[in-house]
Amino acid sequence: MSRFLSDRFASLEAYVPGEQPQDMQYIKLNTNESPYPPSPSVRRRLMDGEIEALQLYPNPDYTRLRQLLADACGVGRENILLGNGSDEVLSMAFLAFCDGTHGAVFPDVTYGFYPVFARLYGIPFREQPLREDFTVDPADYMKNDAMVVLANPNAPTGLSLPLETVEAILRANPDRVVVVDEAYVDFGGVSAAPLTAKYDNLLVVQTFSKSRSMAGARLGFGVACRCLIEDLEKMRYSINPYNINRLTAAAGEAALEDAAYYQDNCRRIMQTREDTARAMAAMGFTLTRSQGNFLFARHPKTGGGELYQALRDRGVLVRWFNRPRTADWLRITVGTPEQMDALLQTLKQILEG
Amino acid sequence: MSRFLSDRFASLEAYVPGEQPQDMQYIKLNTNESPYPPSPSVRRRLMDGEIEALQLYPNPDYTRLRQLLADACGVGRENILLGNGSDEVLSMAFLAFCDGTHGAVFPDVTYGFYPVFARLYGIPFREQPLREDFTVDPADYMKNDAMVVLANPNAPTGLSLPLETVEAILRANPDRVVVVDEAYVDFGGVSAAPLTAKYDNLLVVQTFSKSRSMAGARLGFGVACRCLIEDLEKMRYSINPYNINRLTAAAGEAALEDAAYYQDNCRRIMQTREDTARAMAAMGFTLTRSQGNFLFARHPKTGGGELYQALRDRGVLVRWFNRPRTADWLRITVGTPEQMDALLQTLKQILEG
Repeated sequence: MSRFLSDRFASLEAYVPGEQPQDMQYIKLNTNESPYPPSPSVRRRLMDGEIEALQLYPNPDYTRLRQLLADACGVGRENILLGNGSDEVLSMAFLAFCDGTHGAVFPDVTYGFYPVFARLYGIPFREQPLREDFTVDPADYMKNDAMVVLANPNAPTGLSLPLETVEAILRANPDRVVVVDEAYVDFGGVSAAPLTAKYDNLLVVQTFSKSRSMAGARLGFGVACRCLIEDLEKMRYSINPYNINRLTAAAGEAALEDAAYYQDNCRRIMQTREDTARAMAAMGFTLTRSQGNFLFARHPKTGGGELYQALRDRGVLVRWFNRPRTADWLRITVGTPEQMDALLQTLKQILEG
Repeated sequence: MSRFLSDRFASLEAYVPGEQPQDMQYIKLNTNESPYPPSPSVRRRLMDGEIEALQLYPNPDYTRLRQLLADACGVGRENILLGNGSDEVLSMAFLAFCDGTHGAVFPDVTYGFYPVFARLYGIPFREQPLREDFTVDPADYMKNDAMVVLANPNAPTGLSLPLETVEAILRANPDRVVVVDEAYVDFGGVSAAPLTAKYDNLLVVQTFSKSRSMAGARLGFGVACRCLIEDLEKMRYSINPYNINRLTAAAGEAALEDAAYYQDNCRRIMQTREDTARAMAAMGFTLTRSQGNFLFARHPKTGGGELYQALRDRGVLVRWFNRPRTADWLRITVGTPEQMDALLQTLKQILEG
């Protein structure tokens, strides 16, 4: 750090994104991207005039994109906030609804960005241990004096909470915001978005990065009651009112108009997930019942780090979180059936080798 | 605001972007966009595979784009930070280098986002009055115990500081960061970027939104010594490591490879600026000697608000800042020669009417 950096960041640890080694071509199963490209409608829409208007600022209201999202979620346009990826929506939520005295609480095993946001903004936080089997104990989130942040399905475990449990947590925390991060909801989960009509303390966060094949376009959104969205809009207009560029906004609109394409991809990915999980179980792996576009697995005989490195040496990238509770496990993105066949073959080689 | 918003934001006033009325087609001279589209190389590059890779996250290092920028600025890649527009770079600078005890100082008439960032992050700030003629008194920025933020050329005045003055301010503030916001430097100014090799307290901020016809793509960057960039990268990796989407990164690369196209546009815009300024002076307007892609002008007989409204009623949008020192003035973006002819005709009608 330079001598100019504010002292409060002296020990800040930034987020570590999945690696992108450039030394060779890998089968990339480490950042939960979709193996399928965006819908052809996205290309058509980008060709069709958007590039020529690039010298003009976008309309910071993003009226049409927000309306399409509102229609898809069954809410009003005033209930939608856009982010440069869902990370930006989460960042604005930590900034808006927490401070030095109002903290945050989330599981000890979850998306690694939550503690980073909390440290960045000087927010006290508690990492609530999951049960031994990585399930959430709902009792841990009843009557907190802190913003509750739950990924549902959770990552990297893939485990879901039923909507009744989410609702019980909402009811038990009427004075604090409950953030439900639904990055992976389209692979078998049920969205809490309709509950935003009933609970003014609920913020649902979703992304185009997974089920909608647009990780490279950076588009996320929040769904909440009008009042919470107004607060978050105040943040957005105080940081970057034009946070979504024209190309991404147009791509997002086109994607929403081709919902069937993406639903079909999700079905294929879920099918591939189940097939791969079955094959891995037959090889002796223990797996959680993942409802994301990834598997979370460990082998009784081979450690997570060892397996990660052996896969990497053979051209298959997966994610290994070297922390106490997850060091034996691997998070493996569900790719195409061909990619998963290659993964299974490689695992077989390693385990028999 | 909702009852969940942190108390510290109770009186936060967000930034107000230039209006984008949808009721009719306007000649849009209110947000300092380029009147010319991006180079044809930008379209070619976007067609050429970038859209098909949209399901993959960008490489958060943005190696190639940063290298091209470094080459253009005569610095190293480690001296370049990318932002989702230059606003994001500025936001990260306020967050990193200021806090509750280390404040910021900037002119009373300047880019309206600086006080917004300061308020958002709880940073004490001083708005230093410009001289009567809107010039900066360099003595005001010597030995501040605060981060100095100077737009050069300044907006909305268009006035530049010579590089020697910038250097004197850098020398006088060895223990605080000096931010030089060069959003408009390509229209006749001289960049301080080469001084980053000599001064570890200098952060130069530039944008693709003006001279490079990409306001809609959202791309800005900072140039500084390695140490300052490392601090800002820590912020970027703690907020949004994938802050630049793939399409914008590719468009930025293509734009940098076609520098001649943009230099030619800048020359045309400067010519149009001088022609329009002469014509307006002949109509009785007082103008500053703007070195931006805009004019700053007032008429001795008609108030700023009145003129703004009369122009708007006739389909010409300009920017009016209704604050004590600027209420008599208009900021008018330099458009095409045809757009400026229409402006001049409309002004003539209004003033003779």
